Amino acid sequence: MALVVQKYGGTSVGTPDRIRNVARRVVDTVKAGHRVAVVVSAMSGETDALVALAHDIGGEHPEPREYDVLVATGEQKTIALLAMAIQQLGQPARSFTGAQMGMRTDTAHTRARIESIDHEVLLEVLDRGIVAVLAGFQGTDEAGNITTLGRGGSDTSAVAVAAALGADVCEIYTDVEGVFTTDPNLVAAARKLDRISYDEMIEMASLGAKVLQIRSVRFAMRYRVPLHVRSSFKLDEGTWVVPEEEMMEALVVSGVTYNRSEAKILVRGVQDVPGVAARLFTPLSNEGIVLDMIIQNLSRDGTTDVTFTVPRPDYARALEITRNTAAEMGAITVEADTEIAKVSIVGLGMKDHAGVASKMFQVLADEGINIQCISTSEIKVSVVIAEKYTELAVRALHAAFIEAGAAEPVPEA
Amino acid sequence: MALVVQKYGGTSVGTPDRIRNVARRVVDTVKAGHRVAVVVSAMSGETDALVALAHDIGGEHPEPREYDVLVATGEQKTIALLAMAIQQLGQPARSFTGAQMGMRTDTAHTRARIESIDHEVLLEVLDRGIVAVLAGFQGTDEAGNITTLGRGGSDTSAVAVAAALGADVCEIYTDVEGVFTTDPNLVAAARKLDRISYDEMIEMASLGAKVLQIRSVRFAMRYRVPLHVRSSFKLDEGTWVVPEEEMMEALVVSGVTYNRSEAKILVRGVQDVPGVAARLFTPLSNEGIVLDMIIQNLSRDGTTDVTFTVPRPDYARALEITRNTAAEMGAITVEADTEIAKVSIVGLGMKDHAGVASKMFQVLADEGINIQCISTSEIKVSVVIAEKYTELAVRALHAAFIEAGAAEPVPEA
Repeated sequence: MALVVQKYGGTSVGTPDRIRNVARRVVDTVKAGHRVAVVVSAMSGETDALVALAHDIGGEHPEPREYDVLVATGEQKTIALLAMAIQQLGQPARSFTGAQMGMRTDTAHTRARIESIDHEVLLEVLDRGIVAVLAGFQGTDEAGNITTLGRGGSDTSAVAVAAALGADVCEIYTDVEGVFTTDPNLVAAARKLDRISYDEMIEMASLGAKVLQIRSVRFAMRYRVPLHVRSSFKLDEGTWVVPEEEMMEALVVSGVTYNRSEAKILVRGVQDVPGVAARLFTPLSNEGIVLDMIIQNLSRDGTTDVTFTVPRPDYARALEITRNTAAEMGAITVEADTEIAKVSIVGLGMKDHAGVASKMFQVLADEGINIQCISTSEIKVSVVIAEKYTELAVRALHAAFIEAGAAEPVPEA
Repeated sequence: MALVVQKYGGTSVGTPDRIRNVARRVVDTVKAGHRVAVVVSAMSGETDALVALAHDIGGEHPEPREYDVLVATGEQKTIALLAMAIQQLGQPARSFTGAQMGMRTDTAHTRARIESIDHEVLLEVLDRGIVAVLAGFQGTDEAGNITTLGRGGSDTSAVAVAAALGADVCEIYTDVEGVFTTDPNLVAAARKLDRISYDEMIEMASLGAKVLQIRSVRFAMRYRVPLHVRSSFKLDEGTWVVPEEEMMEALVVSGVTYNRSEAKILVRGVQDVPGVAARLFTPLSNEGIVLDMIIQNLSRDGTTDVTFTVPRPDYARALEITRNTAAEMGAITVEADTEIAKVSIVGLGMKDHAGVASKMFQVLADEGINIQCISTSEIKVSVVIAEKYTELAVRALHAAFIEAGAAEPVPEA
């Protein structure tokens, strides 16, 4: 008998029929002999409607405490409905709001961090054979104010509950069948991965694969909670996200990802003296703009070029700020480009194989694709290219690294 | 400087514009120098939508605990939105769910009774010049389960808050201008009452006037909370509901009410022995059917006739049960009639004036209206008549008792 935490997203509980479908899956898991806690999101569309109301009445920046009181109603609605649906199948169930399960967070409204969970109140219910139906995304701070966890909060709630309960698995149900080697909409040969390590999943999530929120994977890694990403509409196994040492054979490249939501800014001819980066980037971070890639070229004649990428919604603001700073710093020019894409390969096996990056550059060169920037980590290589080459690059890299058999050793460059 | 509790119903907060309108009224009250706590209902339509979802998923009788978790989201949504709207006007405000204001109730889900309120947490906020925006209709039991108060719960919440805070007034905002002498849709000459006693208001509420829930008036009477029923769309004074001793001159008849939502059952020829009523009515109350009027005629030949009224939705079930019981008891016949109306006159001054009932019967007789049953209390007379005469009866009684000058003494019969 295992203790299973299941998490269903907004699409999986988007209609009464889908809620009944989730109830059946939960009851099937109980019938298989397991104790089950279920974490749910708001019904799809619900949170958007609440956010629209918040802006209608509260303006561009609704007061965060009240915003959280408002949006927390979405998950509260779902827990009651799902508990009812489970009860209708003859299985005892009981809902818990964030407050009721002791989901204690800090006071950072709209992006709170989880501090603790009252696992005793949940275990007491589970041990009596009752399904615990838990509101994701929400908690309360020390003073009893309602807080929410921000984007991807329900995944994080589920992982936190699984960690607090010492669950055997945290199943993340979604509308896709698991984690794929690349976007199946782009590459017909994309295939579902059976297993992936936390580190790879984090790289893939941060690079554009949308199946899991990076924050929840970090949380799972920290508390060593096995994740199982699977479809809420099919019974097949999905993808397990597990500690590195549980990977039987590390693929050199597990996945190819892409991200078309960034823009590039290039500052040419900055004096290459200590503190340049700080002077250039502090005004941006003061405005809450998060930089992704940052590349500083080798110094030439005492000056250097700095390239960085920012999210496209922040691009215009970032460009204006950078132009001002660059002018003060005596830079030669500031150039910008919104028509870029970041394409990456991710794989745990890269650690042990040299030449992966070189092979990637060669594959792209063979397709006539110019590389604008490169950034690497131990288990990934990312390049910035012109946006129009995105599909071509992803298909070529998937063919070369995954379809050709990624477990094969890569020849040294 | 007074402490004012204001309560706004679902229609008053039914759209973002109406919520902004309420916010302006609240801020005007603060600007007039008062401390203000506001109790709100769910936006109109919201509760009905939630109840429909509950039945879709939870069947005819959704599990009460989860039902309460679900419907409580309606008021939680409104408090957040109203707090935001007040803040947008530059006035600090803070929302409180039932749990957050310490609205402690018993455990009777869907019809819980209020036990206590944490007035200290509210006064602390009010004393700092912050408007407290409170969710009506909801509370939590000792174990922290969410409860709701049932129909009219928000009025009751407001009165309870006013009592706990020792407020100077509890203003009930609604879509009518106050309490009228009768239904203005039926009688053009109906006029707004400036004052009415708790007792009269209770009789009028229970007899069909919908402006205030009877439960909240009982609560107000018990704790001597002055109520002020007024329009949320106009600035005029409405109707004050006050202790009897604060009534300057007690009207003989304050109002004429009617109720077309009952049906009549008549059992003829029951043996007139002790325990007849209990035997006839126990099977009905066991089924949760609430009887309104009960009239037992004088015994004749050792048998008696019993007439009673029940809510129309319960009528078919009540008739079937009564037929079975009556057969067991050897009654002669059971007759039934759904096309009835109960018409009543209410007035504190009746206590001191004989002949009011007689005058009522005469007025109806003059119109050719036959009286089927009569029931009286110290301050009201009710009759059952054929439903088709409802308007005629109400107009005639209003003309005779109110338009003619109700303060005049009524001649002895």
